[in-house]
Amino acid sequence: MATHDTIVALATAVGNGAIALIRLSGQQAIPIVNNVFKGKDLSKQASHTVHFGTIQDDAAVLDEVLVSLFIAPHSYTKEDVVEISTHNSRYIIDRIVQLLVREGARLAQPGEFTLRAFLNGRMDLSQAEAVADLIASNSAASHQLAMQQMRGGFSNILKQLREQLIHFASLIELELDFSEEDVEFANREQLRTLVVEIRTAVRRLIASFEQGNVLKNGVPVVIAGKPNVGKSTLLNTLLNEERAIVSDIAGTTRDTIEDEINIDGVTFRFIDTAGIRETQDVIEAKGVERTREKMKKARLIIYLVDPQQDSLTEIADQLGEITQLDIPYVVVINKTDLISNHLRSEFRAIDPLFISAKNNSGVEELKTELLRKVNLYNLDAADILVTNARHVAALQQTDIALQRVLDGIDGTITSDFLAMDIRQALHHLGEITGDVSTDDLLNNIFSKFCIGK
Amino acid sequence: MATHDTIVALATAVGNGAIALIRLSGQQAIPIVNNVFKGKDLSKQASHTVHFGTIQDDAAVLDEVLVSLFIAPHSYTKEDVVEISTHNSRYIIDRIVQLLVREGARLAQPGEFTLRAFLNGRMDLSQAEAVADLIASNSAASHQLAMQQMRGGFSNILKQLREQLIHFASLIELELDFSEEDVEFANREQLRTLVVEIRTAVRRLIASFEQGNVLKNGVPVVIAGKPNVGKSTLLNTLLNEERAIVSDIAGTTRDTIEDEINIDGVTFRFIDTAGIRETQDVIEAKGVERTREKMKKARLIIYLVDPQQDSLTEIADQLGEITQLDIPYVVVINKTDLISNHLRSEFRAIDPLFISAKNNSGVEELKTELLRKVNLYNLDAADILVTNARHVAALQQTDIALQRVLDGIDGTITSDFLAMDIRQALHHLGEITGDVSTDDLLNNIFSKFCIGK
Repeated sequence: MATHDTIVALATAVGNGAIALIRLSGQQAIPIVNNVFKGKDLSKQASHTVHFGTIQDDAAVLDEVLVSLFIAPHSYTKEDVVEISTHNSRYIIDRIVQLLVREGARLAQPGEFTLRAFLNGRMDLSQAEAVADLIASNSAASHQLAMQQMRGGFSNILKQLREQLIHFASLIELELDFSEEDVEFANREQLRTLVVEIRTAVRRLIASFEQGNVLKNGVPVVIAGKPNVGKSTLLNTLLNEERAIVSDIAGTTRDTIEDEINIDGVTFRFIDTAGIRETQDVIEAKGVERTREKMKKARLIIYLVDPQQDSLTEIADQLGEITQLDIPYVVVINKTDLISNHLRSEFRAIDPLFISAKNNSGVEELKTELLRKVNLYNLDAADILVTNARHVAALQQTDIALQRVLDGIDGTITSDFLAMDIRQALHHLGEITGDVSTDDLLNNIFSKFCIGK
Repeated sequence: MATHDTIVALATAVGNGAIALIRLSGQQAIPIVNNVFKGKDLSKQASHTVHFGTIQDDAAVLDEVLVSLFIAPHSYTKEDVVEISTHNSRYIIDRIVQLLVREGARLAQPGEFTLRAFLNGRMDLSQAEAVADLIASNSAASHQLAMQQMRGGFSNILKQLREQLIHFASLIELELDFSEEDVEFANREQLRTLVVEIRTAVRRLIASFEQGNVLKNGVPVVIAGKPNVGKSTLLNTLLNEERAIVSDIAGTTRDTIEDEINIDGVTFRFIDTAGIRETQDVIEAKGVERTREKMKKARLIIYLVDPQQDSLTEIADQLGEITQLDIPYVVVINKTDLISNHLRSEFRAIDPLFISAKNNSGVEELKTELLRKVNLYNLDAADILVTNARHVAALQQTDIALQRVLDGIDGTITSDFLAMDIRQALHHLGEITGDVSTDDLLNNIFSKFCIGK
């Protein structure tokens, strides 16, 4: 991957807006822009300064712009970076980008600015990946996880684990140099204690993925219940309320995902399923099984009941089914505006929430209850959660290698095999931070970025 | 309109992109951002400098950002302006904007930054309007017109006209002060000459609107011809070629308008009409009339002929019809891949262009011819063309007032009536530049801007 050329890309979104930002990075970034900029001589300006002027294609003024300079290494990529703030006209952007390409810049690949930031040591690979996660973040939880990872929280833990292992690896490798003399520089009991410790940490990180993934991508929720108990009314009530909150922020439209709601910073993602009840009538065991499979993917079940339709016996039956799934659930009695106090008190036995989705009553209490159930996955600001499938895979490989190290110590295998297994564990940890990387891996990661990042 | 408060808005487009820009303007812009920015003390930094740091909502880091400072009057609005460059996540943008509002900023109305630039004397009204035109520009011609207007070309002409008139107005008003003494400070013959001169300039500007409007919004073109002569094939050939040119620029999609093509910087907009030929069969005169009305809106007619189908007599008939419309036209013989040299030479009599839309032959020559016909409206870089309907209306009002001034001089009316008519002309000229404006007018103009501009 050549990083001696200068790349250019539109860094802001395409669409209706006032300002667009065109970004360049590379040795020639400043001379290239200086050639087409009429204003101060950019080659003589300090880093982190902004300059007003025009971009000219020969005599034609393409735009009045602001040019910001970031001189290496004090930039995102650690190379010279120039940002040109233009009027957000597609025509102007195209003309300026074409002009900069004629002057010697190359159109950037997706994620190429961040790739350069990684290759030039501005950040490690897991931090670079967090940049994409940060841009994609759409809830307080996913934002916090990405921010923590971008700012190096996860990297620091991995660094500590690696340093401890490297220390022992070097002692073991020292033994190899003196292998004739049969000395043990690395105390096997101390090594065993350390490896067990590291492995506990690695396994804690692996275990955190389930929670991290749920918080990053949303808590999958199933609303179960017979037809006409009010499932879609409930979903709409939850969705509409959120939209009302959202709509008074700025004049821009948020891309609403129809079946996601956000409660106190946690995204709840609703899975489309007919629910258990409906399949009761299906004789085929396979049909029931399929629905159950779908429900198993949920982290939470809302079991919605129409008190005029469902009997307590039926409900008890269903709760038996749901309990077997071993997933947290909430029993919700809907349409409470239509029932008598007597009927209401009968249902108290199963300790449900009473709501009227239509009248929007009890919905706040339901939200609180959903959050309470999700508190199972309570996120502490200091907790490091793994959110990336690639990282989990590498941690699992690390775990296997560490298991072999432990087996080796117990089986008293020779230092050279022990050294190999430790190196293997180090290799897999290094894959996460990019201390070990291949072009294919980098390509795979950065091609998923947007252009201009 | 209160301008002592501080406004905030997202200034970049919403969508997929790396960077977003949040912009503030007003006396409190720097203190408000300083309150939530962790990094250098922004209140102690120079104008036109950029600072790296984090935006924090209490302990929570919302984002790592770059903050640019523009200290009054050295900014777009002539107020203190702060631009915050964030990761382009809808979640982060919402959180930061909400935070800034909590700290005392107010969400900006559409165009409010440019409105402030106008109110604070950074630009006149016609320049402010050109900012919106510039953002909307989508061809070299529309871009050039907007750029020229934004950079004050039109304003300068108006300013000159106004200054000359103001000079005479003051002389006439002086006469009013000495009305008892019946003196003439303003030589009536000189005044007459000047008013005629100014009126010629005003009328030239009014006349330029037709051309300016066509260049701004596209040249309306009708492709006329019988069914199956290849009208849509020709249109597709023209469109596809442009798409091929466009598609290798940057990785972003351009919004293609299906029936617009761009030839050498001029937009040609195709009007959907059945053409004259088809309505020949319609006995009803009304039907023919309606088509003719549509064709009259065209600035150019491509009369497309299938040489295997249309006889020379028929064509001559049609050309008679078209000639009556008094609109430039091009006769194009299509499907030349299918005809003999003999037939071809027969058609030479009417001096047509020979093309094969299907084989893409002769299409470049057609484009050149279209441009040549549009050269009727040849745009010189120094020409000032009026592109705004509001400006034309004001110029027409000016023209009427000037006519009354001339009538007054000829009829030797009293100085006070003359002064009133001159003031009226000045008023209408002032409406264009905003020397005269009402809240309603400003509201109407700036509400069409995007938010953040």
